[in-house]
Amino acid sequence: MALIVKKFGGSSVADKDRIFNVAKIIVDDYKKGNEVITVVSAQGDTTDDLIEKAKEINDGSISKREMDMLLTAGEQISVALLAMAIEKMGCPVISLLGWQAGFNTDSNHGIARIKNINTDRIKAELAKKNIIIVAGFQGLNKYDDLTTLGRGGSDTSAVAIAAALHASRCQIYTDVDGVYTADPRKVKDAKKLCEITYDEMLELATLGAQVLNNRSVEMAKKYSVELEVLSSLEKKEGTIVKENTKMEKMLIRGVTSDKNVTTISVIGLKDSPGIAFKIFNKLAQYKVNVDMILQSIGRDGTKDISFTVPREQSDTAIESIKSLKSTIQFADVTTDNSVTKISIVGAGMESHPGVAAKMFEALYDADINIRMITTSEIRISVLIDENKTDKAVQTVHDAFLG
Amino acid sequence: MALIVKKFGGSSVADKDRIFNVAKIIVDDYKKGNEVITVVSAQGDTTDDLIEKAKEINDGSISKREMDMLLTAGEQISVALLAMAIEKMGCPVISLLGWQAGFNTDSNHGIARIKNINTDRIKAELAKKNIIIVAGFQGLNKYDDLTTLGRGGSDTSAVAIAAALHASRCQIYTDVDGVYTADPRKVKDAKKLCEITYDEMLELATLGAQVLNNRSVEMAKKYSVELEVLSSLEKKEGTIVKENTKMEKMLIRGVTSDKNVTTISVIGLKDSPGIAFKIFNKLAQYKVNVDMILQSIGRDGTKDISFTVPREQSDTAIESIKSLKSTIQFADVTTDNSVTKISIVGAGMESHPGVAAKMFEALYDADINIRMITTSEIRISVLIDENKTDKAVQTVHDAFLG
Repeated sequence: MALIVKKFGGSSVADKDRIFNVAKIIVDDYKKGNEVITVVSAQGDTTDDLIEKAKEINDGSISKREMDMLLTAGEQISVALLAMAIEKMGCPVISLLGWQAGFNTDSNHGIARIKNINTDRIKAELAKKNIIIVAGFQGLNKYDDLTTLGRGGSDTSAVAIAAALHASRCQIYTDVDGVYTADPRKVKDAKKLCEITYDEMLELATLGAQVLNNRSVEMAKKYSVELEVLSSLEKKEGTIVKENTKMEKMLIRGVTSDKNVTTISVIGLKDSPGIAFKIFNKLAQYKVNVDMILQSIGRDGTKDISFTVPREQSDTAIESIKSLKSTIQFADVTTDNSVTKISIVGAGMESHPGVAAKMFEALYDADINIRMITTSEIRISVLIDENKTDKAVQTVHDAFLG
Repeated sequence: MALIVKKFGGSSVADKDRIFNVAKIIVDDYKKGNEVITVVSAQGDTTDDLIEKAKEINDGSISKREMDMLLTAGEQISVALLAMAIEKMGCPVISLLGWQAGFNTDSNHGIARIKNINTDRIKAELAKKNIIIVAGFQGLNKYDDLTTLGRGGSDTSAVAIAAALHASRCQIYTDVDGVYTADPRKVKDAKKLCEITYDEMLELATLGAQVLNNRSVEMAKKYSVELEVLSSLEKKEGTIVKENTKMEKMLIRGVTSDKNVTTISVIGLKDSPGIAFKIFNKLAQYKVNVDMILQSIGRDGTKDISFTVPREQSDTAIESIKSLKSTIQFADVTTDNSVTKISIVGAGMESHPGVAAKMFEALYDADINIRMITTSEIRISVLIDENKTDKAVQTVHDAFLG
């Protein structure tokens, strides 16, 4: 007998048939003698529909507190319907809202953090042999107001329960059947991974492999919760995310691309001591996330400094540079959105110095120019022209994983 | 400055325009310096839609606990949207679910009774000068499970808050602009009443004037909460329901008709002591609500006993009579659905013995036959042929109120 936490997203419970599909997965595990707690999101487009309704009423400044009041109704409906389906299948079941399941959060409505989970009610329901359905994405603050955990919140809810109850495993059901070495819709020979470490998963998640929410992986790492990413539609093994994995002789785990990048270039900087410090200090004050940086020599003894930021921070970055006009001298600031970041991720590369060279050589052979480079212990990212994205991912994948 | 509790039904908040109409009524009263608490139901057809969804999943035995979990999401959406509309109009506002507003109920899911209201949160929000929007129809039992109050539950929620806070008035907004002496769609010269007593309102509600839920009127009477029934669409005075009213020289307050009646006749009863007792005792055991009773002499020294029951109890009544076959002797049991109960209600008739005679005379003049009669201190009801319903109501209305 094991304690298993499962999580199903909104599309998995979008209609009657899908609800029964999920109910069957739960009941099968329950009938094997396991204790099963399932976290679900709001059905299909419910959350978007509710946001639409709210904006119809007030397109300006809706308080986040009232938005949370509105949105949490979505999971309330889905947990009740899923419980009814399990009742129909003849198993004992109870649905619990976030606060009934003991989720205490801070008061940052819309992006609340879980402070603790009071597991008394969940334990009592498990003791009664009930299957438990928990509303994901939601909790309660100390003022007894409903809160939501933000994007990917239901993943976080599931991992948090698994951590609090020391569950054997936390299964995240999605519409893909695991984590792949690259996007299987785009890359020939992309392979499903049996296992992956938390750190590798974090790098992949950050880089745009939209399988698991970052916060939930961080939490899983912190509390050593073994995660499994698997399909809600096909019955097969998924990908396990855990601390130590068999290396399977793979130097890298995956290749990803991320188009949410803008290059900002400060051109014609008059060289003076501390000029780079002044620029990046100002960007930090404006809370701009700088990723890659390149400094180069310009004309007439001036310098150019280029860096990348997430696309939505591009305006803020330019504003912060322009605010330096009286402090430093430069000719112009330019932006370029026609770029993509290609990354390889793998704990194996730490002890293999040749990985970067192999990646650069593959790109060179494919006639793809590298504009910038950044590395971490388990990741190498390069900036290339946007229109060569697919070719670059396939080339790098062939070199390491083909 | 007064503390006012308002209640709006689902049709009053069915869409954006109606929500703003309600918001304006609330904000107007708030800006006059009043404290305003508003109870709302789920939007339009939301509750029916949710029930439909549930039945799609499980058309058999859905637990009432899960049904309450599902349905309470309906008011959660409407309170949030109404609060957002008031935010848009620039007033401070907070929405509260039933449990946040302190509604503690028993555990009879679907038909829960309010045990008490913990008013701490509401008082704190009033102290912050917030307009308060409360989800009607719902509460929380001692196990921290959501409950619903049953049909007309939002009226009950509103009256209960008004009672707990000693509000100056509880205003029930509907799609009619008050309580009338008869159904204004059917009776010429039907007049709106300025005032009516709780007892009169209870008799009218029971008899099919579907303006106010009975339980809420009983509660208002018990705690002396002054009610006002008024229109959410037209701005004019409604009808006040309170303990003592100016009599306005009106003997009676209203004429109603109720078609939910079946006549059951036990024919050819062999007379013996206690035979009526045996019949009505058995009906009581089957929980049949007997209203009017008529005993008459049949053929050959036998008796007939006829009585009326609500139409949905007709089968139960016949079953209970048939179970007496071995105890008492009778020739047959018959039913007749082609009847209507016409009633006049008014506290004034208590001290005016001629009221019944005047009613019977009016019906006689209109050639309408009276089959049975029943009276209370403030009500006289007669049973007539169903096809003469409209004529009877108009005739009696003309006689007393024309």
